[in-house]
Amino acid sequence: MSKILVIGHRNPDTDAIGSAIGLARLEQALGVDAEAVALGSPGPETAFALDHFGLAAPRVIEHASPHDVMLVDHNERQQSVADIADVTVRKVIDHHRIANFETAAPLYMRVEPVGCTCSILTRMYAESEVEIPADTAGIMLSAIISDTLLLNSPTTTDSDRIAAEELATIAGVDLVDYGNRLLRAGTDLGDQPASSIIGLDAKTFSMGSASVRVAQLTTVDSDAVLARRDEFFEAMAAERETAGHNLFLLLITDVIACDSDLLVVGEPVDAVERALGITVADGHAFGKGIVSRKKQIVPQLTEELTS
Amino acid sequence: MSKILVIGHRNPDTDAIGSAIGLARLEQALGVDAEAVALGSPGPETAFALDHFGLAAPRVIEHASPHDVMLVDHNERQQSVADIADVTVRKVIDHHRIANFETAAPLYMRVEPVGCTCSILTRMYAESEVEIPADTAGIMLSAIISDTLLLNSPTTTDSDRIAAEELATIAGVDLVDYGNRLLRAGTDLGDQPASSIIGLDAKTFSMGSASVRVAQLTTVDSDAVLARRDEFFEAMAAERETAGHNLFLLLITDVIACDSDLLVVGEPVDAVERALGITVADGHAFGKGIVSRKKQIVPQLTEELTS
Repeated sequence: MSKILVIGHRNPDTDAIGSAIGLARLEQALGVDAEAVALGSPGPETAFALDHFGLAAPRVIEHASPHDVMLVDHNERQQSVADIADVTVRKVIDHHRIANFETAAPLYMRVEPVGCTCSILTRMYAESEVEIPADTAGIMLSAIISDTLLLNSPTTTDSDRIAAEELATIAGVDLVDYGNRLLRAGTDLGDQPASSIIGLDAKTFSMGSASVRVAQLTTVDSDAVLARRDEFFEAMAAERETAGHNLFLLLITDVIACDSDLLVVGEPVDAVERALGITVADGHAFGKGIVSRKKQIVPQLTEELTS
Repeated sequence: MSKILVIGHRNPDTDAIGSAIGLARLEQALGVDAEAVALGSPGPETAFALDHFGLAAPRVIEHASPHDVMLVDHNERQQSVADIADVTVRKVIDHHRIANFETAAPLYMRVEPVGCTCSILTRMYAESEVEIPADTAGIMLSAIISDTLLLNSPTTTDSDRIAAEELATIAGVDLVDYGNRLLRAGTDLGDQPASSIIGLDAKTFSMGSASVRVAQLTTVDSDAVLARRDEFFEAMAAERETAGHNLFLLLITDVIACDSDLLVVGEPVDAVERALGITVADGHAFGKGIVSRKKQIVPQLTEELTS
């Protein structure tokens, strides 16, 4: 059997990278020739985690053909590898909504409404009676911390809490101490221009007939980020124009307070206000308790734009 | 929490009914107010199985709203309840390709390339540490026998074999003896007109821009069925016209020999020939070793009609 590529979504975050490494290692232990790859380079948070556990970043690919693939942490085709329509999808392990995904033949698909793909993978290792290597446990733990904001996001489930405790033990780190260091590393925007920052963790969604881009960045100092709001508005408007999105939302999430500021470019703004229960003034809104794109933005806005 | 409906596909077969009962009972054991329902009445095979294990046929529904739903043995919306777009899908347990399925929010989805949905459910009971009641084991076993032609179909996996042995023990039946009786019961077409027979186990698929209807019936006497071929052609042509299908295929599957005769109405016939490696003469072809719509018809024809 030829090599199978394990792929996370575009603009990979720590779960996209961590779950690709986690599933590839599990498949290898089960005798499958699998390789974790990525659709981009790691951001600062993921780079911190890979470095901490002595792991190399997965090879970046542009196309998957002629290999079969396994998808982790996504299923929507516009978030996947460019030639996804031309390759066979063997497995999907994910924790997102299902959309724009189809196959010609039956496959293995495991999607659960939990906080992180790596929490599903942790149980899959147990079910297969495969031990998780310490470095793999470390990057999988990092993914859970990242996706759940150290188990504080409303997406967090018991499944995530149990997996995080187990992985921290295997990886030999203190969950809270390591978690805080990881999240802080993720807020380091360096000296990147706004146009780069808005693409670090951004996904495109089809909602009814609208194309909606939702980007997110995490911070421990919202005021400092918001001081650059005009740069962000400009970069978002330019990308919206170029890519033909109807709406562009940027969540600036305070990982300590667990709230987000939202910047909104495009139309319809009133749909965003209704969907999220917020008031947008001059393109800005404060989202009390909003930290999850997947649970607190996408379903509500999809509902509003398709009804 | 209000009641959740567990729904198999339209034109329910034994797996659609059996997996709905199986999942509903599992959810009930876990404290969920779930009810198995059906999108039609049981055919003769399913009726034999329900009667054998003293189970009532699930209530037939036309619409699911206002209830949330769990889907078993299907995911494609055209095979589901009429108002599927208006209700929330909580879970999907299936063993088919993924197509025409999307959700606004994350859900629990477990799809595996095994012979029968009830084989996945058997493991889910074990994972949840819930004992399978004997009558439920009986209908779940019947689903596996039906979908795998008593573990003879090429769709059969070790997962199906293990589940079948386990369920037969719980249900207190001899696998082979009961299995042969069940499959024979499924070949009883009674005095139904051809127009009814072609709808007993029929599914519609979108393949590229084509709508393709694929019906299947099982028999222990292919010659007797083929003697009525003109009736079938007439009924298939009428339904194709009414429903606007491009192609209508009928598989007449010999459950002893594990081969099928195929009747083909509509266009493009050459695509059917290329996809399945058969020769169609006067609308008829013999499909050596073809018994599985899911594995031996749909992927190949989808590939041919979308490339």
